[in-house]
Amino acid sequence: MSGSISPLAPKTYAEMPPVRGVRMATAAAGIKYKNRTDVLMMVFDRPATVAGVFTRSKCPSAPVDFCRANLPGGIARAVVVNSGNANAFTGRKGRESTKMTAEAAAKAIGCAESEVFLASTGVIGEPLDATKFSGVLDGLASNGTEDFWFEAAKAIMTTDTYPKVATRTAELGGVTVRINGIAKGAGMIAPDMATMLSFVVTDAAIPASVLQSLLSAGVGPTFNSVTVDSDTSTSDTLMLFATGAAEGQATVTADDASLDGFRSALNDLLRDLALQVVRDGEGARKMVAVTVEGAENDEAAKRIALSIANSPLVKTAVAGEDANWGRIVMAVGKSGEMADRDRLAIWFGDVRVAVDGERDPTYSEAAATAVMKQEDIPVRVEIGLGNGRATVWTCDLTKEYVEINGDYRS
Amino acid sequence: MSGSISPLAPKTYAEMPPVRGVRMATAAAGIKYKNRTDVLMMVFDRPATVAGVFTRSKCPSAPVDFCRANLPGGIARAVVVNSGNANAFTGRKGRESTKMTAEAAAKAIGCAESEVFLASTGVIGEPLDATKFSGVLDGLASNGTEDFWFEAAKAIMTTDTYPKVATRTAELGGVTVRINGIAKGAGMIAPDMATMLSFVVTDAAIPASVLQSLLSAGVGPTFNSVTVDSDTSTSDTLMLFATGAAEGQATVTADDASLDGFRSALNDLLRDLALQVVRDGEGARKMVAVTVEGAENDEAAKRIALSIANSPLVKTAVAGEDANWGRIVMAVGKSGEMADRDRLAIWFGDVRVAVDGERDPTYSEAAATAVMKQEDIPVRVEIGLGNGRATVWTCDLTKEYVEINGDYRS
Repeated sequence: MSGSISPLAPKTYAEMPPVRGVRMATAAAGIKYKNRTDVLMMVFDRPATVAGVFTRSKCPSAPVDFCRANLPGGIARAVVVNSGNANAFTGRKGRESTKMTAEAAAKAIGCAESEVFLASTGVIGEPLDATKFSGVLDGLASNGTEDFWFEAAKAIMTTDTYPKVATRTAELGGVTVRINGIAKGAGMIAPDMATMLSFVVTDAAIPASVLQSLLSAGVGPTFNSVTVDSDTSTSDTLMLFATGAAEGQATVTADDASLDGFRSALNDLLRDLALQVVRDGEGARKMVAVTVEGAENDEAAKRIALSIANSPLVKTAVAGEDANWGRIVMAVGKSGEMADRDRLAIWFGDVRVAVDGERDPTYSEAAATAVMKQEDIPVRVEIGLGNGRATVWTCDLTKEYVEINGDYRS
Repeated sequence: MSGSISPLAPKTYAEMPPVRGVRMATAAAGIKYKNRTDVLMMVFDRPATVAGVFTRSKCPSAPVDFCRANLPGGIARAVVVNSGNANAFTGRKGRESTKMTAEAAAKAIGCAESEVFLASTGVIGEPLDATKFSGVLDGLASNGTEDFWFEAAKAIMTTDTYPKVATRTAELGGVTVRINGIAKGAGMIAPDMATMLSFVVTDAAIPASVLQSLLSAGVGPTFNSVTVDSDTSTSDTLMLFATGAAEGQATVTADDASLDGFRSALNDLLRDLALQVVRDGEGARKMVAVTVEGAENDEAAKRIALSIANSPLVKTAVAGEDANWGRIVMAVGKSGEMADRDRLAIWFGDVRVAVDGERDPTYSEAAATAVMKQEDIPVRVEIGLGNGRATVWTCDLTKEYVEINGDYRS
């Protein structure tokens, strides 16, 4: 946890109401941090259905392996999350650590180990001593309360400067259901499936297979459309649980039109959390929304947008409040996607800075610079070739990013 | 040109002897910089053969378009290079500017416009006023001298902190021939064909088609294996000229074994210049050589090595002298190439820090940190799957990089 809070932090945090069917508790186990909570346990007293998406890294963490193995069962009774150590690239010791944690959690709850899900975040490569917190799981299991979302979000923070929470409601099967979510993440953010850690719970009753479809579709324009530094974590984990504790809800199936409202609320919540992650990007002072239109197709638009959003030269120019649109041209050019230089147009906010392959004839440095001084900077690029469209979000690259990451382990 | 010279600059510069058949002169035209030379003209009094490789950017500069159009002719009489303005994304004005420059150069030399080659480096998107230097080309053409390589390298600098020169000799066709080269580049360096600007001249007599084969093969393990910031320039241009002025040389053909010595000397020179570019990476304080072995094949090894070399988290850790090998694991994992976490081994210098998918049992933080304190840091990763091998070179990511690029245009 960094000393000062990101200037892009929410001015107010969402009030997080309980979600029926899930209880939470946290503990300070001293895994790496002193004087703060670093273990979170979520308990589903009745089995919840579960869906998950994970990092596409070829070197995933031990907890990611563990969750992937349990996911086909479709049932969750407990989630244990720790910060301060990612339990990634820890070999046999890492697997033993996940097994010890799952055993302790299953024993505390009275469930099968296959109904436990785990996540760890923090330093890669250091062995995780699970004995540090396996002893507290009994207490956490019995002390959990429904009204603990904000504290839960705080316990999973690493270099985050603020906790990330969001809540929505939707009409489903004749009743109002709730969706709550928390997330953590600030660096090593270029999700290629999910980003870092995020846990979303609804009290709706939704079969695991339907839940998985909703989640897999939902991450594309949300968590998979944000990038802080183009580095994909070994630990990315996004899980969605449905407790079914909202009373009186009718059964839903995959092709049920009644899911539309829920889907929409879920996607809105995922986007909210994903943008909170970018706004807490390490060292971030500005948020950039990059929209690419007129590309060959949507996939091409997204690749061009990510090429812009990941460019160190674009990001340092944003940090310097420099309307250096030439670097946008560079990033379009290097993306490898179809582009015709002489059809390109570029906007900063509402200010068109380039058109037809050259500087806009009415270009005003003052107008462009005024946009760059904003906290939120919309960048739009018109490729002029087709109907492909995508938006991705990133932050600027500042000296503070270099400082935070120059000596993270110590 | 930055205020202080990179700590990684060569301790001494190569003595640059003349290459028969090429003369050079420079001028201070005030294109962007004050009180320094910013135009270079190279003149081949007798037609030289020419080869070139250029940026793969879809938004190349006007001079890149111009050179591509002239290259099939295979003959060069003049090269005009300016710094301070890239003449990229300048539309019709950009094409007019290249035409005006080529006309003036052709008139000064008495050659065809198709025998003129152009390159520009600097800000993207600003119209380039070619009248600023087209008037001086007459003088440059007549005043050029053979003994001017170091000054030539200085005239093409932008954010470079030192000029980049290299020279080699080789035996070819019974005589000793010379190869001289200059390069510029410090930021926007992730060549995807060549990097920034580099001009190499030999007095050997080599047909253009053979020259092109040599150059195209030579860039792979040299200029195309370095990265400063993963950003590919719109202007990357590497050209090789053969004046044929070395007297008495026998004719060579593409499959001539006598080319071996020349090829080897050329590749060595290209590598020398490419590494000089990385060592002048914007804000660089350390140089990192990333070697990946045991990958599925050489291409996979190079992609993994570039994933490591381009990772902001790896580069900031190097800047902080932090032996954070967990980030190497992360970068291997995100590369998308085949990897088996539990077979990975990682070395910093001679210190093995990880093996068999976890921290080395004999890991010594002190030994690893001692390597990180070096100016030159070798990183080696053994994938353990095949025989693929590649080395790429990069530099660290420092606060100075952010500072240099936060306000480049002003």
